[in-house]
Order: sequence, then structure tokens, then C-alpha cells
Amino acid sequence: MHSLSDIQKLVSRRQKGKSLEAPFYSSPEILDLDIKEIFSKHWIFVAVEPELPEPGDCVTVEVDKTSVLLLRGDDMEIRAFHNVCRHRGAKLIDERATTIGNIVCRYHGWTYNEDGDLILAEHMGAGFDKSCHGLKTVHVRSIAGLIFICLAKDAPADIEEMARVMEPYLAPHDIANCKVAHTSELIEEGNWKLTMENNRECYHCDGNHPQLTVPLSAFGFGFSPDEMDQRRSEEVNKYLSAVHTDHTRWEACGLPSAESDHLSNITGFRTMRLPLMRAGESHTLDTKVASKKLLGQFTDAKLGGLSFWTHPNSWHHFMSDHIVTFSVLPLGPDKTLVRTTWLVHKNAHENEDYNLDNLTHVWNMTNVQDAELVRLAQIGSQQPAYEPGPYSTFTEPHVEAFCDWYIKRLDDHFATTQKAGIAAE
Amino acid sequence: MHSLSDIQKLVSRRQKGKSLEAPFYSSPEILDLDIKEIFSKHWIFVAVEPELPEPGDCVTVEVDKTSVLLLRGDDMEIRAFHNVCRHRGAKLIDERATTIGNIVCRYHGWTYNEDGDLILAEHMGAGFDKSCHGLKTVHVRSIAGLIFICLAKDAPADIEEMARVMEPYLAPHDIANCKVAHTSELIEEGNWKLTMENNRECYHCDGNHPQLTVPLSAFGFGFSPDEMDQRRSEEVNKYLSAVHTDHTRWEACGLPSAESDHLSNITGFRTMRLPLMRAGESHTLDTKVASKKLLGQFTDAKLGGLSFWTHPNSWHHFMSDHIVTFSVLPLGPDKTLVRTTWLVHKNAHENEDYNLDNLTHVWNMTNVQDAELVRLAQIGSQQPAYEPGPYSTFTEPHVEAFCDWYIKRLDDHFATTQKAGIAAE
Amino acid sequence: MHSLSDIQKLVSRRQKGKSLEAPFYSSPEILDLDIKEIFSKHWIFVAVEPELPEPGDCVTVEVDKTSVLLLRGDDMEIRAFHNVCRHRGAKLIDERATTIGNIVCRYHGWTYNEDGDLILAEHMGAGFDKSCHGLKTVHVRSIAGLIFICLAKDAPADIEEMARVMEPYLAPHDIANCKVAHTSELIEEGNWKLTMENNRECYHCDGNHPQLTVPLSAFGFGFSPDEMDQRRSEEVNKYLSAVHTDHTRWEACGLPSAESDHLSNITGFRTMRLPLMRAGESHTLDTKVASKKLLGQFTDAKLGGLSFWTHPNSWHHFMSDHIVTFSVLPLGPDKTLVRTTWLVHKNAHENEDYNLDNLTHVWNMTNVQDAELVRLAQIGSQQPAYEPGPYSTFTEPHVEAFCDWYIKRLDDHFATTQKAGIAAE
Repeated sequence: MHSLSDIQKLVSRRQKGKSLEAPFYSSPEILDLDIKEIFSKHWIFVAVEPELPEPGDCVTVEVDKTSVLLLRGDDMEIRAFHNVCRHRGAKLIDERATTIGNIVCRYHGWTYNEDGDLILAEHMGAGFDKSCHGLKTVHVRSIAGLIFICLAKDAPADIEEMARVMEPYLAPHDIANCKVAHTSELIEEGNWKLTMENNRECYHCDGNHPQLTVPLSAFGFGFSPDEMDQRRSEEVNKYLSAVHTDHTRWEACGLPSAESDHLSNITGFRTMRLPLMRAGESHTLDTKVASKKLLGQFTDAKLGGLSFWTHPNSWHHFMSDHIVTFSVLPLGPDKTLVRTTWLVHKNAHENEDYNLDNLTHVWNMTNVQDAELVRLAQIGSQQPAYEPGPYSTFTEPHVEAFCDWYIKRLDDHFATTQKAGIAAE
Repeated sequence: MHSLSDIQKLVSRRQKGKSLEAPFYSSPEILDLDIKEIFSKHWIFVAVEPELPEPGDCVTVEVDKTSVLLLRGDDMEIRAFHNVCRHRGAKLIDERATTIGNIVCRYHGWTYNEDGDLILAEHMGAGFDKSCHGLKTVHVRSIAGLIFICLAKDAPADIEEMARVMEPYLAPHDIANCKVAHTSELIEEGNWKLTMENNRECYHCDGNHPQLTVPLSAFGFGFSPDEMDQRRSEEVNKYLSAVHTDHTRWEACGLPSAESDHLSNITGFRTMRLPLMRAGESHTLDTKVASKKLLGQFTDAKLGGLSFWTHPNSWHHFMSDHIVTFSVLPLGPDKTLVRTTWLVHKNAHENEDYNLDNLTHVWNMTNVQDAELVRLAQIGSQQPAYEPGPYSTFTEPHVEAFCDWYIKRLDDHFATTQKAGIAAE
Repeated sequence: MHSLSDIQKLVSRRQKGKSLEAPFYSSPEILDLDIKEIFSKHWIFVAVEPELPEPGDCVTVEVDKTSVLLLRGDDMEIRAFHNVCRHRGAKLIDERATTIGNIVCRYHGWTYNEDGDLILAEHMGAGFDKSCHGLKTVHVRSIAGLIFICLAKDAPADIEEMARVMEPYLAPHDIANCKVAHTSELIEEGNWKLTMENNRECYHCDGNHPQLTVPLSAFGFGFSPDEMDQRRSEEVNKYLSAVHTDHTRWEACGLPSAESDHLSNITGFRTMRLPLMRAGESHTLDTKVASKKLLGQFTDAKLGGLSFWTHPNSWHHFMSDHIVTFSVLPLGPDKTLVRTTWLVHKNAHENEDYNLDNLTHVWNMTNVQDAELVRLAQIGSQQPAYEPGPYSTFTEPHVEAFCDWYIKRLDDHFATTQKAGIAAE
């Protein structure tokens, strides 16, 4: 049992540059706080627009105990509501995705329109005021087709900065004209922060991801200069010059490619476009495009891989031919859902333009490998002998950035609570 | 974590006419209190006499962690004991139902007779006093064959009022001469109170129970007068007059039929006999009797349906040809066991006098449909956006009566505790 | 929820001669204390040397959340380490048993040698000191091939007394030249103390273990003198004289056989060699040896059964032809792992010298029967009607000795804590 003051102590004594103390990965009370302060107050990534392309299309999202209903209206706008009836609280839509006219509660037939207004409730008598019983709304924001929601009353305003920076990177990949080719849901046996930490470095890639590393350079994700010899130095220089050449070419075609790091924002994010090796076209086993129908207006397949990482819960890889997008949601202190969605051009035909196994193989394998690493890190971190260990400043700076961001969020929360406490006196 | 004072606050601020606040449906501490104050201090329905017709027949009942052994003695009396050996505490009878001579513990052979006296215990030496190690007893009361137990030291005395009122209603259905045709155990993924609330209204029947509603009138369970038009008014009047005619006929045959409401008693209950529509004989898909062998001395099949509802955990439907009886037992804050037993005349032969599918179809389907509604209400009520919503005064008064009774029980408990506290000072 | 002061109260009011109060078998907080004070501070039995016969052989052991890695080095010594990487805490070896060169973490390749020294860690930069990041060690002690570990900083010194007393008993059975013929893992649905209590008496054997009792005398495990008649008295005398004859014969061959009881030591244990009935050779259904290849230098198969019981978590049976050894580890308040290992001579060939079914049948059946008794005792002990019952002084003195030892350990802990508290003032 960790009291709030225990947690505050753990937050304030966190050692920079090291992994977090064990309770951050296991305490039910810290998970409760993560839900309350991180997942309920920040913008979180939950879906892509191609999951609900038509009016009446509806997607539900479960963030801990909160179920949110995303609904595309007749005006093509996406609205978000708390997925709970105002009568006796029954969950309204139980499926992940469906298409509806109005929102009708199965229990007693209470009916809401696409604005969430209660329009029918039988047997409630003359004195009953329908206008007080509409659905409660949730903030929703689509950035170039990536749907973020925020459960707080006041959502962080710097989502606009993320939109402004990212839209030029993302727009050319034209998500609106994509379709979902495949979705996977994987439950990792570890704390959500271990899933995120695992995503924020490729130090572990060489030894664990034989498929993922096929088109990746060993130098793309940091290295220690102390371990350089003549041969490795030459390779590094060759790689850096290739990056420069590619960036220049891509920027000339209107594809922003330079690294842009905003990881310490409240709505923290980072992006960069990296060259792919070998055939250099896509994140597949043969490094060629998985889908013949290129995205947007692309005619050149060799556009490398644009990555987009967000705090607290997503990452995305955009290639010339397909997109892979990931959302992370905690299911318990040691259980985390990783939802992966593969998008291709909406006019690409399966078995003609793309083969599903080929499209999904690399990340299906990588996800399973990562789940195993997260499981081992989870078990290990719960052993009494565990103590926070050092991150490599060369290969794990973004892990540190994630932990730093996370600790800052909780620290700010405690500072605000304290100030409110003092003000109240 | 809800402390007793948190719970007391929740109890005292309960809004009349609305569903309960979320913790009542999910808090482990409130479930503990429910077990302690509701299920361990009130009369609860657990079995029917036809489950143990002969001497030596034994039925075990699990109420949370308490296992109770019901045993019919050679004198045909049913006795109830705590199902735990006085040596090292092993559970004595592990099956739901069996037939035994004496009660013998499997662990070390300690043996008790039908009065619960310890009659054999090897190796205990000369100084050991068997008479101090008999089984602990439990209150048990059969009302016309429906077996109620009470785990408290002092059981509520008003069980006698329930017996006095109900025996004339129940006796003609002659449970003693019934046999168990079928039993089902369904685990609902919801709090036991949601199971009970669901049972206490038929507002949800129209939209969810296509089988159950075949012989039911749309007006049998309340309606809003504000929604009446000419046509509906005529239908209502027709229905009320049919009820009057039937009640008159049934009372003339010695079948009490009028509604009798004692829902605010400590041992709260309510009964009424309702006409059935169409063929009007029984609760089956074709509304005809499921068993050709009518119960008791009945010769007329068209006796409608006598319903009997009890606080905190049962309901029962008696027709001319069969009985369906339900007990509800909490298994966890969001897990509830619904046990359904179908009784027919003991001389009715399966496949000759009755067909099991036909007998059980309506309630098997209805139970599954209700379980789904309870599940949706449970999930919904745990969402942060949930807030207590209004019950219809026309179609949900008995839901309100149940919540009211429940809140009153806890309120009385806190009042007694407080008084005891003050007296102790 | 049991606070430490609740537990202290329960410890101090324990009634001698009776089973423990219910919370000792169910409270998560008491299990936490058991882990902390019993399993993390005492010598516990975890494996046998034949599980890791060669250099590089490695066995992992899970004691609650602590994973320990046992590794036989090139010098044939067995070392024990905490099985957790010093980088980001990943569990190092995930299998129960494997053979390795160095210890390499799968996550980022950090590598440790057989002394636990960190010898490789890429990308950590020039300032990183490998010598501060070696594996943490665990105490390990082999007594004639039975491996005990202690997780405490300072391990109880009286392990040496156990070694001194037991080695002469155990050495002739020559565990070092045995091999593992079979292993079973059984999860019992009960508290670990109920598993131990069940092991510490044979009062329950007659009624529950038809296979185990074949070669056992009804008088080998105590009896009440008050229940003696002429015939039984004669049988007892016959049995005692047989024990005397056998002990004399065995001692003459260099096999210590007399009972030796040190159950109140911190490292508590007890041993004795008991005659086997009928063919008298081994613990099999036909009471003949299961393996034709006798252990050590034995030529006589009729050596009875040497039993060795230790606090808190093991028992072992040594015959002329095979050994069965048991370790008990808590998995939760009501879940316990019983690991059983059957050893035969390393040169015995399956299906030639021994048949696996015949070798394992008696204890496989006995384990399952005991698991069922433990389950019934667990459920029963959690019923509100349960109260501690009396142990037979004739047949259950070792159950009392176990409870007494256990309560003494917790009592000493509270006394030390209190003294430390007073000293600190």
C-alpha cells in the first residue's frame, strides 16, 4: 500500500539517469495516480480516422474504467462521449466498432442523438426534464487523421503546438485516404511505463529484433563514441552522410524530415524521418514496399521511415506505402494493452496490391519480442534485489526523457495539490 | 478503499428515487458489509425441500465464506450446521448434494450424528471432552417447502409474518410433492444488487425478453399515464378488468391472489398472482402447461402466475403445473451467482408428462439476457462519468423499494453501532 | 487487513496445542510477514545437487518475488545470485534449469561471469564503473547434496549443527552419484502452513493414503494408549521390537537410525529411520525396490526409510534404491507449490533398472490426496464458524512442534523489533 505521501517521496527522490524505483512498475496506488494524472489529464492517442470513415460509424475506447464513444456525425465531424446511459448507468455501446443511427441504450431504450441529447425516455412522467440527461462529452482532436482524446475538463492547450509542427510531416501520407488493413491487440505482462521505455530505445534491437533491424542502421539510434575504432568511425560517417543526402532530397520534395524534439512539452512528442537500408523502401523483410499502391500523391517509394512518438502512449511509423500506429493503455499495474493498426491506401486491394502476412510480419514479430522483454523487466523489477540502474546517455536518452516527463507530471501534480492546500488554509 | 465512515456517509446521502452511487456496486468493503449486515443477519433463501426429500439427504450452501450443511434427519426435520470440522477445521461435505449416514470428516475421521454431536474422535486421549466439540448450528425455516436460513445468533422474528401471509398463497402449489426437474447456476458479472434491481422491474422486458413477454401484458408492470392515448387507455382498462375477473375466480377456488406488499419489513417480501395472456396456462413459449401433471389438487390449468419476491435474495414463480425459484448469492463485488430451480409434480415423468427444453426454455433465455444487462450496468456504473439516475415512479417503484430497504438496513446498522458506542462511553 | 499490531496480538494469544487462528492461513499481510521473517531469514531447501551436475549448469528458484540463480562453476562450487540484471532489472535466466557459459542478459546484452562480475556492458561510456554493477549474492549450503539457501544478510549459524548431525545419516545414500529420475510440481490450494501441518502427522494416513500406507505400520506415527486392547497392545509390542532389531542391524552397518529431534532450533529439523513392512525394501506398491541399482555402496535392499524433516519447508525420504525429496514454497495466502523430486543411482537405466510409473506412483497419488485435504482445510479454516481445534498429543505432536516453531519465530521478530524501537528512543 502506497499512500500519496509515499508516492510523493518516491517522485521527489527519483535519481536522474536511472530507471525508476520498483513501486512505479507495480504499485496499484501508483497506477491509480497514473490513470488520474497522466491518462485522464493528458491527450492520449486512441484511434485513426479510417476506423470510422462514414457518418454513424462509431468506435469505443476503454481507458481504464472510462469508456469513450467516438461517433462520426452526418456533418463528418467526430464527437466523443462518455459511453454510459444517464438512466441507470448501463454501458451504451459494447463493441469496439459498429455503425449506428441514434445511440440507444439496450437496457430501457433511452435514446440519444449524435449530439448526445436525450431524445427518448419512456415512462418517466411529465415532470422529467430530458435536457438535463444528455450524454457527457469528451475532448477530441484529430491531427492529420490520428485521433487524440483528453478526459480532463480542461485539456492541455499545447496540443495545438503538436498539430502545427506535425501536420506538415504527416499530411503527405494522407491518412484520410487510408483504410485499416489489420489490427492486433497484444496484452503485455508489464507496467505500461516499461512498454513505453522499451519503445524509446533501440539498444535492445540488435539482440532481439532480427526482423525489425533488417532495414535499420546500427547507428540510427545512438552509440558510444568511446567504443569507436577506425572501421566503425568510417561506417558512422558513411551513415551520417547518407542521412544528410536523404534529408536534402526529401525536404526538396516537400517532405519535412529533420528531427524535431518537444519531449518536455506537456503534450510531449518527437519526430524524425530516417533512411531505410538495403532496398530502402519500407519496413518489410525484403525492405521493399508492402503495398504497390503508394500513399497520398507519392510516386517515389524510397521515402525512408517517418517516426512520430508521443507522451504518454503512442508511436507511429509512416512509410511511402503503409503506416503502422501503436497505442498503449494500462490494464493493471502489470498488464498493458498494445494496439497496433496497419494502414494502406484505401484503394489497395488485398492479395493484389498487398499481402497481409508480408505487411504485418515485421511488427507482429517485433511486438511479441518486445512483450517478452517487458515481461522479463517486469518480473525482475519486482525482485527485492532490484535497484534502479543507469541508462546509457548514448543509446537511452529518450528513455530518460520519458521518465523525466512522467516524473515531472507527478511532481507538478503534487506541487499544485500542495499550493491548493496552502491557499485553502 | 472505503472506511466504515466513508460508507456511512454514502448511506446517509443516498438520494431517494435514484440508483445508488458507484461504490455500492463495486467496493470490496461495501460487499464485506453487505455480507455481514445483510446476508449474515437476515433470512436468506437457499434451497427447496424437494432437494433433500429423504432422511440422510444433505445439501450444502455457500454464503460468501460460510458453508452451511442442511441435513434431513430420521425424524424428517431439516437441521442446519456450519460445515466445518471442530478438529482442524476441514470442510465436512464438499458436494452440493449427497446422502449420508453420519457426518464424517475426511481428514481424521471425526464423526458427528444428525444432531451435530461429536460421536467419534480417535487418538484424542482420556481427557478430551467430545461434548464440547459438536457442530455449530444455523437457524433454518421452511415456508411451504421454501428453505430459508439465517446465520445470525438472533434471527429476525418477522419471518413468522412472512410465513403467516405466504403459506395460504403457496400451500396449494404443494411443494412437498414436487421434484427438482432442473437446476441451473449462472454467474452474472455484476454486483448482487444490480441482479436484484434488474429483477424488480419489467421496464426492460419489452426490449430484452422476447420469450418471457409472450404471456405477459405490457400493462402488468406499470406504465406512465402521461403517455396514454385513446387506444392505450382502452387496452389498460381491458387488462385491469381481466385481472379483476381472474382474481375473483381464483379467490373463489381458495387461491389468494391479491397483491400483498411487505417490502419494508426486515424480512421484506411481496406477492401477487397475475393473469397470463394467450392460452394463459403457464410460463412457456406456447403459454400452455409444460407439465401435464398439475401440482397439488389443481384441475384447472389456467391459474396465472403467482410471484413471490423476497429481500434480499430471491424470487419465485408458481404456475398450475410447475414452479421456478431463484436464489441470488454474491461471489464478489462484481460477481453474483443466480441459482434457478425448476420443480414439477414428483409423479410427472420426463418426456412423457413434460419436456425439459420446453419447461426451462423461457427462463434459461431470460436469465442469460438479464446477465448481459447486469454486466452492462456493472461496467457502466464503474465509469467515472456515471452518476445516479432517476427511477421511473411508474415502472421502477420496486427497484426503489429494494434500494430503500437496503439503505435502511445499513442505516439501522450504523445507528445501532453509534448508540452502542455512546452507551459504552 | 491485518496491521503488524493485529498480527502481534494474534501471535501472542496463540493457544498451545491447538491449530492456528484463521488469519494465519489467509491474511495477505501475514503471508507477507511469513515471506519476510520465515522464508527470507531462514535456510530453505530449494534443490538437489544432481539438478546441476556439471560446470555451467544453472537452476533458478522462485521464493515469492525473489528469483535466485544457482550456478555450478568450473571449480565445481555452487554459487547463488539474485537473478536480476543490474542495468534495467530484467530477469536474467527465465528457465528452471539450463546450461550457460557466462550469464548474459537478453535485454541489452550485459554479461556477468560465474562469480557474478559484470564483464561486458556496451554503450555505457568511459565514466561507467563495471565493478559497481556485479550480481548480488545469496547464501548457499549443500548438506550431503541437499541445497539450502538463505536470503538474509546474516544466515542462521546453526545450519552447521544440522550439517553435523545429518551428514552421517545422509552420506551413505550418496546423493552426489544420483540423477533426477522425475520431478513434479503440484499447486495446492491452501496456505503453506497447512501443507506443512499435513506433512507433520500420519493421523490422516489410514483414511486417505491407501498407497502410502502399504509399507507403513499403523503404530509408526503415534497412537492413544487409552484406546489399547489386548490385541492392539501385542501388535504394538511386536512393532517396537521390530524397530529395535532393525535399528541395531542398521547401526551395525554404519547407518545411523535413531530418532534425532532438533525441531526447536532456528534451523529446526528431525530425522529417523523407520522399518518398512511386508517385503520391507522401499516405498512402492509392492514394497520392493523400484530401482535395481542400489544407491551408494548398499548391497542390502532392506534398509527401511530414512526420513528427514526441516523447518520451514521440506521433507525427504531415503531408501536403499531411491530418494524422494519435497520442497514447499508459498505462492499466495491460499496457494502453495509442492515440488517433488525422485532420485535414483546415476547409472540406473530407465525401463531396465527402474520403471518410472512404479517409482513415482506412491508419492504421486499421496501428493494429490494431500492436496485435496489441504484444500478442504483451507476452505474450512476461512469459515466464520472455524475456531482453533485441539491437536492429538499422541498423533499430532510434530504438527504442534511446527506451529510452535513458527509462532516462536514471529514472536522473536516482534521482540527484536520492539527492543530496537526502545533502543532508538
